[in-house]
Amino acid sequence: MKKEPQKKQPPTRRAYELRPIRIQRGFTRTAGGSVLIEMGNTKVLCTASFAPAEVPSWRKDSGLGWVTADYAMLPASTSPRKPRSKIGHTDSRGTEIQRLIGRVLRSVVDFQKLGENSIYVDCDVLQADGGTRTAAINGGYLALVDAVRWAMRQGFIPENPIRQAVAAISVGIIDGRVRLDLDYELDSRAEVDLNVAMTADGRFVELQGTGEKNTFSQDDLDGMLKAARKGIRQIFQRQKEVLR
Amino acid sequence: MKKEPQKKQPPTRRAYELRPIRIQRGFTRTAGGSVLIEMGNTKVLCTASFAPAEVPSWRKDSGLGWVTADYAMLPASTSPRKPRSKIGHTDSRGTEIQRLIGRVLRSVVDFQKLGENSIYVDCDVLQADGGTRTAAINGGYLALVDAVRWAMRQGFIPENPIRQAVAAISVGIIDGRVRLDLDYELDSRAEVDLNVAMTADGRFVELQGTGEKNTFSQDDLDGMLKAARKGIRQIFQRQKEVLR
Amino acid sequence: MKKEPQKKQPPTRRAYELRPIRIQRGFTRTAGGSVLIEMGNTKVLCTASFAPAEVPSWRKDSGLGWVTADYAMLPASTSPRKPRSKIGHTDSRGTEIQRLIGRVLRSVVDFQKLGENSIYVDCDVLQADGGTRTAAINGGYLALVDAVRWAMRQGFIPENPIRQAVAAISVGIIDGRVRLDLDYELDSRAEVDLNVAMTADGRFVELQGTGEKNTFSQDDLDGMLKAARKGIRQIFQRQKEVLR
Amino acid sequence: MKKEPQKKQPPTRRAYELRPIRIQRGFTRTAGGSVLIEMGNTKVLCTASFAPAEVPSWRKDSGLGWVTADYAMLPASTSPRKPRSKIGHTDSRGTEIQRLIGRVLRSVVDFQKLGENSIYVDCDVLQADGGTRTAAINGGYLALVDAVRWAMRQGFIPENPIRQAVAAISVGIIDGRVRLDLDYELDSRAEVDLNVAMTADGRFVELQGTGEKNTFSQDDLDGMLKAARKGIRQIFQRQKEVLR
Amino acid sequence: MKKEPQKKQPPTRRAYELRPIRIQRGFTRTAGGSVLIEMGNTKVLCTASFAPAEVPSWRKDSGLGWVTADYAMLPASTSPRKPRSKIGHTDSRGTEIQRLIGRVLRSVVDFQKLGENSIYVDCDVLQADGGTRTAAINGGYLALVDAVRWAMRQGFIPENPIRQAVAAISVGIIDGRVRLDLDYELDSRAEVDLNVAMTADGRFVELQGTGEKNTFSQDDLDGMLKAARKGIRQIFQRQKEVLR
Amino acid sequence: MKKEPQKKQPPTRRAYELRPIRIQRGFTRTAGGSVLIEMGNTKVLCTASFAPAEVPSWRKDSGLGWVTADYAMLPASTSPRKPRSKIGHTDSRGTEIQRLIGRVLRSVVDFQKLGENSIYVDCDVLQADGGTRTAAINGGYLALVDAVRWAMRQGFIPENPIRQAVAAISVGIIDGRVRLDLDYELDSRAEVDLNVAMTADGRFVELQGTGEKNTFSQDDLDGMLKAARKGIRQIFQRQKEVLR
Repeated sequence: MKKEPQKKQPPTRRAYELRPIRIQRGFTRTAGGSVLIEMGNTKVLCTASFAPAEVPSWRKDSGLGWVTADYAMLPASTSPRKPRSKIGHTDSRGTEIQRLIGRVLRSVVDFQKLGENSIYVDCDVLQADGGTRTAAINGGYLALVDAVRWAMRQGFIPENPIRQAVAAISVGIIDGRVRLDLDYELDSRAEVDLNVAMTADGRFVELQGTGEKNTFSQDDLDGMLKAARKGIRQIFQRQKEVLR
Repeated sequence: MKKEPQKKQPPTRRAYELRPIRIQRGFTRTAGGSVLIEMGNTKVLCTASFAPAEVPSWRKDSGLGWVTADYAMLPASTSPRKPRSKIGHTDSRGTEIQRLIGRVLRSVVDFQKLGENSIYVDCDVLQADGGTRTAAINGGYLALVDAVRWAMRQGFIPENPIRQAVAAISVGIIDGRVRLDLDYELDSRAEVDLNVAMTADGRFVELQGTGEKNTFSQDDLDGMLKAARKGIRQIFQRQKEVLR
Repeated sequence: MKKEPQKKQPPTRRAYELRPIRIQRGFTRTAGGSVLIEMGNTKVLCTASFAPAEVPSWRKDSGLGWVTADYAMLPASTSPRKPRSKIGHTDSRGTEIQRLIGRVLRSVVDFQKLGENSIYVDCDVLQADGGTRTAAINGGYLALVDAVRWAMRQGFIPENPIRQAVAAISVGIIDGRVRLDLDYELDSRAEVDLNVAMTADGRFVELQGTGEKNTFSQDDLDGMLKAARKGIRQIFQRQKEVLR
Repeated sequence: MKKEPQKKQPPTRRAYELRPIRIQRGFTRTAGGSVLIEMGNTKVLCTASFAPAEVPSWRKDSGLGWVTADYAMLPASTSPRKPRSKIGHTDSRGTEIQRLIGRVLRSVVDFQKLGENSIYVDCDVLQADGGTRTAAINGGYLALVDAVRWAMRQGFIPENPIRQAVAAISVGIIDGRVRLDLDYELDSRAEVDLNVAMTADGRFVELQGTGEKNTFSQDDLDGMLKAARKGIRQIFQRQKEVLR
Repeated sequence: MKKEPQKKQPPTRRAYELRPIRIQRGFTRTAGGSVLIEMGNTKVLCTASFAPAEVPSWRKDSGLGWVTADYAMLPASTSPRKPRSKIGHTDSRGTEIQRLIGRVLRSVVDFQKLGENSIYVDCDVLQADGGTRTAAINGGYLALVDAVRWAMRQGFIPENPIRQAVAAISVGIIDGRVRLDLDYELDSRAEVDLNVAMTADGRFVELQGTGEKNTFSQDDLDGMLKAARKGIRQIFQRQKEVLR
Repeated sequence: MKKEPQKKQPPTRRAYELRPIRIQRGFTRTAGGSVLIEMGNTKVLCTASFAPAEVPSWRKDSGLGWVTADYAMLPASTSPRKPRSKIGHTDSRGTEIQRLIGRVLRSVVDFQKLGENSIYVDCDVLQADGGTRTAAINGGYLALVDAVRWAMRQGFIPENPIRQAVAAISVGIIDGRVRLDLDYELDSRAEVDLNVAMTADGRFVELQGTGEKNTFSQDDLDGMLKAARKGIRQIFQRQKEVLR
């Protein structure tokens, strides 16, 4: 099939420049937190639903809460369209991604302060143009903050359980050069692909690098980590502005 | 659990008045048609994806195309949140709804003119506040129009296969009085609930009335159909404005 | 494949005439109610099983009971045979039908009087020749009555929770004329197809009209409802005779 | 739950006496063969559908046909009712049974003469009171014969592929004595349970003996086989009468 | 595909001779009993896991325990490899086999002495060359013994609940002659195939004979049972040596 | 439940010391490559099955082959036992792992030289004591080599498509110190957990670091990578010895 046209990033984007980020809080009202995040043409709706007095069975009577993440793509978020049965949280790629999102978000939550409550973070990709998992983390964090604020206003939790901010970015090597925040077109040309999640204090939460098409050296790794660090700093900046 | 607050319609809405309708075409770019429709607080993303030279196996070599509809709710589109496994196109309610949407949209398509091509209409409920199936039909029709226009621009089909417009509205009886375009709060109080889909020339496509809580008389039916007709006329008006 | 011969209705059946109805109560003994109903060549086994002190979780401690319906077709009930995986209560058509049957039967049950007990109505199509859903409602109602009588004899419920009789019929427009109780051959030629369920006091419970192949006017609707009313009156007559 | 009353066999039934057998051919018309068989209170609808020019993929271009069997119980065929998801061809007991039925019926079919055609034998238990698998074999054989006759009349096969009759019976040891054709009540008291399928020329097709509750000696086996032989001879007699 | 070479049994194996048996106890340490058993080229890992104070729901408060068996084949245990989704405990053949294994092992267990505890016997076929179900029974019995010993050492059960040994062997008729312990090559040539499980005191637990390809006479049966008896005696001998 | 005893590694293991590695090639014969690998108490059976002229549909007519990996745990490979339905390639953890194994093994294969053939690498965990995914990679690589040699001997491929060796190891930080090759006990105490896969020429294929319990600094990362590099060098040494 002839592909639907996808607006490519202008060739002038610099290596360390992120795609334009657009963030809309309160996109829906049914969840405590609801954030529509766009990174370039990638568009993810992240909601965080606070579920009071509900924890997985293995958490019962521990006094501790839990944060769980769900990731799915809408059928028409890619072109050509993918049948609902072949995308999202039931396929193996989706499973891998939602586990990643959950781990990253949990890393900044104090479960003692959350108490025996759960927060469900749902990340639904409305339009996919590369970097959906990192967009989901960045938007999911904001939704989490809003859900926590909602729960505090409602009196479900007395104290903010979020210890610090967390953000993620993808970085790759294309034609031998480090590139940040890969869109679909760059991603498919990348020899190496690394997803990095960091906390606001500059420490790593997750590192997932894969060199299936081309292995990478320690120098490549160092270069990519340096770029990722720069990109993540810009995202923290945007998150702060948005939450103000 | 304490429910998330949902803005109720002001008590001043008149019996034959619809909730405010907001329509955004081109919400995503990966599908030929992509419409975000809001009827009051109900918010549905409707996309229509044109799949050239693809038809169900029982249509092969018939020269005729097909239109198929998919309906799903995002987990956080209701409060409290519903697990992904209990919503959408795999549960029995979702199945019933997506069959309805498909039948209604197909009723205005000339499959000869569509040729051996398929159009997939995906209706994903982002926020549910009653009337999701009728909002899906109204938005789905617009997405269908846009997908057809896209396919004609691309040269996949020479002639417009859409014969006329189609729209739908819900109507019910609450406290003995006919009410139009029920939101969740009205819907749960309704004694009788009727969904009506009509074409622009004033003929019925689908009638689905259920009096599970309270049966209804011929007079009730006549009253509801009269109201539905008025509501649907307003929707056709909006569709026309939007497509101009 | 060459189709198995199916006895067609004689061409002399009048527009308002039903196909011959045959009803056998007590067809099996394992359920409180068990009715084999035939409408023309359509043959459905309807059983109603009374389950004392068992209700869905959302009904617990409400003092109210529940009635649930299941619909399935035997693989060889149509010709050519359909694999078991593609028929019955797991496919989307079957799902739609069993929801309809459940709503109609529940509309005549007083759940207070039923108490916290459930009745399961299983409708298994042994032979399909059009109108399986309406035959299932007509036979299911009788099985429900028998299951209630059984439960009263056993002392599970003190009072009859069934408020009045309910019945259903299909009606359509073929070659521009209203026809009642469509068999498969008529059904496949029908431009419009309406299923109507009514209570003995002449009020509607369900109306499901679909004009996928051809839309219909208010006059068409009025004509079909008039015919349906006549047909349903005949069914109530038969139900009464049978229950005597 | 208080069990539905099931008519027990009179205590006077002799050890070598079968329960009363009732057989109704042509119970439905959609399949070439359709037999309602009752052995005591066990009631199974057996249909055989001839599918011309259709074989499993591993049989393609072999010139040979295939016979496949399906076994399922209706939910209300037992008391208390079993949910549809826990019965029939998807549970492990049902799987075991339908494999047995298939093997037995195939043992008397000449696949060369059947040609590249399939016959599907569906055995649906309408009422279960012990011995459903043997009733299914006995009724399934008759349905097979009728489907073959139908296919010969239609000209799909020139020659009868059924080599000889086949039948089956259950036999057990209760209170130290051999008993034939166990109903549910006997079956649950049986120390040993043996299902035997034989051809008309007195040879074994299947032997399935299980002594889970009590092992059995060579003498026990000999006694049971002798009784089974007598029972099966009576069934062959009935089959012959019915097919005349 | 060209088949992987499988070492065939030397043509010199006598009719009543078993294939070489190799048994390794304690193959893994995570289960109380863990036995790698080889019969010729068939290789099955049998583990028995003792689960204290855990019984199926229908056993609760009965004072009785339960033994459950699981059977699966590794994808590469046959050549060509079978996809994981088409093998093991979810396919119909696997289901039939694991029910057989469970029944046989339960026949020698005193559930009163086991108390309200469960033992799970998992039989995973590492390499399949015929007779996997009988190897699974023979190895599973040994694992069961070891799990019981472990549970007694741990103080979970005071007394040995195993009443006596149990073993199984396959026997068939090839070219008109009785053969014992069929490997894949013999099995595919067998006209008749009988699996026999017996207790140490010489009584039958299970008999499963199938003559799908060729029916068998009483004489054939007698000959096969005689051979099976001889084979099983040898297995009891090996079990005893191994457990010493 | 009281846990089965698991032999812990002696406290004297040095930080950069691996657990003892045992490797058995040709463990089964049905697959071209079959390796039982043990790293400490972790025991994984890795088979590689060569499937000539078979590729995924999206590879058809590309002239390129494919390598696919499957990962599953036997139910009794952990204590307490896990039900088969909750482990292996269908759960989300297993899915994540088998995708990792596949990517790593594919990184060293020249698909042009492999031609349009597939190799399936199945990794079945017989006993789990931490590091199952890295053991699976190390054993899977050896099985892959053996399957390739088999295919070359059979004449399916003319030239060795494996470009170089690949190996993997886990590394973590426990009580602030870097530790190599974590067993279950260490793993559950680890603040940070990093899996590293490298090729023989010292380049990275995969890096998967997660600091869910505790984030990590650039220094931590450098320390862990240094240790991983040392560990992997030892594994390459063992692989070479074994393949000689």
